[in-house]
Amino acid sequence: MKNDAITAMDVDFAKWFTDVCMKAELVSYTSVKGCMVIRPYGYAIWENITRILDGMFKATGHENVCMPMFIPESLLQKEKDHVNGFAPEVAWVTHGGSEKLEERLCVRPTSETLFCDHYKNIIESYRDLPKLYNQWVSVVRWEKTTRPFLRSREFLWQEGHTIHETAAEAEAETRKMLDVYAEFAEKTLAIPVIKGKKTESDKFAGAVSTYAIEALMHDGKALQAGTSHYFGDGFAKAFDIKFTGRDNKLAYPHQTSWGVSTRLMGGIIMTHGDDNGLVLPPAVAPIQVVIIPIQQQKEGVLPKAQEIADKLGAAGVRVKVDDSNNSPGWKFAEYEMKGVPVRIEIGPRDLAENKCVVALRTGGKNPESLDGIEETVKTALDAVYTALLQKALKNRENRTHTAKTLDDINNALEGGDGLFLAAWCGEEACEDGVTEKTGVRSRCIPFDKELSIGDVCVCCGKEAKHMVYWAKAY
Amino acid sequence: MKNDAITAMDVDFAKWFTDVCMKAELVSYTSVKGCMVIRPYGYAIWENITRILDGMFKATGHENVCMPMFIPESLLQKEKDHVNGFAPEVAWVTHGGSEKLEERLCVRPTSETLFCDHYKNIIESYRDLPKLYNQWVSVVRWEKTTRPFLRSREFLWQEGHTIHETAAEAEAETRKMLDVYAEFAEKTLAIPVIKGKKTESDKFAGAVSTYAIEALMHDGKALQAGTSHYFGDGFAKAFDIKFTGRDNKLAYPHQTSWGVSTRLMGGIIMTHGDDNGLVLPPAVAPIQVVIIPIQQQKEGVLPKAQEIADKLGAAGVRVKVDDSNNSPGWKFAEYEMKGVPVRIEIGPRDLAENKCVVALRTGGKNPESLDGIEETVKTALDAVYTALLQKALKNRENRTHTAKTLDDINNALEGGDGLFLAAWCGEEACEDGVTEKTGVRSRCIPFDKELSIGDVCVCCGKEAKHMVYWAKAY
Repeated sequence: MKNDAITAMDVDFAKWFTDVCMKAELVSYTSVKGCMVIRPYGYAIWENITRILDGMFKATGHENVCMPMFIPESLLQKEKDHVNGFAPEVAWVTHGGSEKLEERLCVRPTSETLFCDHYKNIIESYRDLPKLYNQWVSVVRWEKTTRPFLRSREFLWQEGHTIHETAAEAEAETRKMLDVYAEFAEKTLAIPVIKGKKTESDKFAGAVSTYAIEALMHDGKALQAGTSHYFGDGFAKAFDIKFTGRDNKLAYPHQTSWGVSTRLMGGIIMTHGDDNGLVLPPAVAPIQVVIIPIQQQKEGVLPKAQEIADKLGAAGVRVKVDDSNNSPGWKFAEYEMKGVPVRIEIGPRDLAENKCVVALRTGGKNPESLDGIEETVKTALDAVYTALLQKALKNRENRTHTAKTLDDINNALEGGDGLFLAAWCGEEACEDGVTEKTGVRSRCIPFDKELSIGDVCVCCGKEAKHMVYWAKAY
Repeated sequence: MKNDAITAMDVDFAKWFTDVCMKAELVSYTSVKGCMVIRPYGYAIWENITRILDGMFKATGHENVCMPMFIPESLLQKEKDHVNGFAPEVAWVTHGGSEKLEERLCVRPTSETLFCDHYKNIIESYRDLPKLYNQWVSVVRWEKTTRPFLRSREFLWQEGHTIHETAAEAEAETRKMLDVYAEFAEKTLAIPVIKGKKTESDKFAGAVSTYAIEALMHDGKALQAGTSHYFGDGFAKAFDIKFTGRDNKLAYPHQTSWGVSTRLMGGIIMTHGDDNGLVLPPAVAPIQVVIIPIQQQKEGVLPKAQEIADKLGAAGVRVKVDDSNNSPGWKFAEYEMKGVPVRIEIGPRDLAENKCVVALRTGGKNPESLDGIEETVKTALDAVYTALLQKALKNRENRTHTAKTLDDINNALEGGDGLFLAAWCGEEACEDGVTEKTGVRSRCIPFDKELSIGDVCVCCGKEAKHMVYWAKAY
């Protein structure tokens, strides 16, 4: 079981990742440095992601809008922490046609400033609150080193931006959307995630607090898969957004923002992929079932393959019959590379027996009756989902270590990268110290882990304030 | 019948248009000059447009992709006509963070060059053809004078880009997509359109031929609502894209592109709107039916309103109950402004009689039984669609004139703007002459109008080569 077209994961995980991106036809390089072309197969996965997530946003009361892609420099500069965080990595438009602009514009790296500019125009009273907005757009950050899906100068994402009457309501929104992300990652993408709070040094520029979902990839490195920020009234003050409250007094509203991006595509690849290529969670697979006719020139084979496809299609399954002239072996390898969750093989002998072979991308194949094939396939798709989630959980379990000392971390790292649960005193010097001495970085302060009495900082040995997950990260 | 919040159409059509955009909460101005915020209600219309059109593209075999938003200057310059057409109106990125770029990048005004760059990487043989690609993105053109939806520096659109083995196949694709646009405009948006070919002077920069659908707005000005371009092998030659043909020889492929944009939103407003505001074609209305309870504090009224809403929702109708504390009169005006196609009024008396009042945004209201309300509403929505299409056809009919001379045009223009069908010799000097002397411009050479023997050019009186529609245009 190894596709020779791609580097083995154990040999070079980074090269394996790029090979999968290219051979599964997810992306292509372009003449535009640091950017990527998302090809039809990759984009179809992203379309499934956006459709499902967008439904979850709408079910939680959010509406889509579209802001401009440009931010005038003066607007970007209104919130001091925010501009300091983003100005070093934005692309600047200085000319329109042959004329120099009076004020240069940056291509949005994120749109808090644009939403604030809009909120100031449309919010007067508590009756205008909350606004629960989202947009699906691309943003630009001028990264030096880039990799498909993981770090590119332009990437696709959604950014939710909400504004509320009270701090409590905004904080609840921040946490609610983190829960939506976690549910989506686990239930739809079969990627288990840890929910937690970012440390001060790792917060979004301008946020009071940043929450994240963190996933562990197959190689033991962590991937921040989504973030949700609580802003308090900092942006409102910087942009002078006020509303008349129920007490008839002017007050500043409280804001949030939250986002996931095409990084999720990287997360899918690195959580589920194997040496045969991509493995897709059924919910977002463009092709959930591929039907491969065996000896397709024999009478009745192709019509039966199409009959099965029609049945599955009518049952809501995304299905494809590959009746091209390539050999069955070539087709098997091709759809394994593309991560199609379920393969059906149907040949002359199966016809006679009213059967077909159902193979799971996660392993195992069995002859199955053609009667009730819809149910059989749905069970198979569920089995792929469960196998993916279990494998990811197992990988995380195997790679998670509790550490009392830096030596514990370094010793464990000799067996491979992973997640380290270790207490921390809360000082930035110690946070940096851990990274310097071990290579792992703080990922988040998890919601579901408590400090025990007597826990001390893994770095300085003083009293601990937080339990923290540490890992190398993408 | 006149909402005082907006300027009357007859008083100032341009001001009426802007008023509707703002009061119906479709868009908002921003600090970003020449750009707009598309607000939730406007964006929800656009989402319906994109969902339906995207389905039509997929049904005709097209796949979505995503290209970068930037084009390196050297790439833009590869096709000479193309760069001459677009370079004067692009936004230039010159800096990434604090560093000056080695080569400046323009923000895509359209993406032919990026698709060509990609095709060159992925096409080797006739087996790789055709590629039928599309993308939904925003593009930027540095317009001096801007108006919401009609002309803005950034706008949303889709751009189809296809590449084919033969010229005939590419030409057929160009015409097929024009037909898709025409069908969408008429069947979905209730906007009748004329299909035709653009004159040489009005072609897309780099095209062999450009086809368009032209719609006539309420005020008698034309709106180009969609275009489809045939490129021949010009781009392929400029970008050195070659494939090995069936005869084993290298050949240049043939290309097309086609697009519609948020201009369609402008078309909807200006075709169907009235002095009470927006009027939406049911297929793209975010709210197809609004239910307004009368004396809603009376027992049973709100539960019955909700019961009707649930029934309609289950039948696939987009429905909203407005149970806010505003008066019914305020609500009537509000949803008329927002162009909601059907309004249901339900009060205590209706309850007793198992009835409600069904009012159409296009005029007329009747008491209807609550039994079978789903069918009643579907019939009402169809009636709104038909009324809109008929009204638009009637307006176009009333405003279409056949002209033999420039005086014919000028005389007719005294009665109001409109469409003029007049023969033309094919010389650019005469095309310009018509515009100079009458103010109307060539819109297209319609597919369904033939020259008669003896027809002469409306400008110079020499032998005519084409029948042309002329109009003032947005």
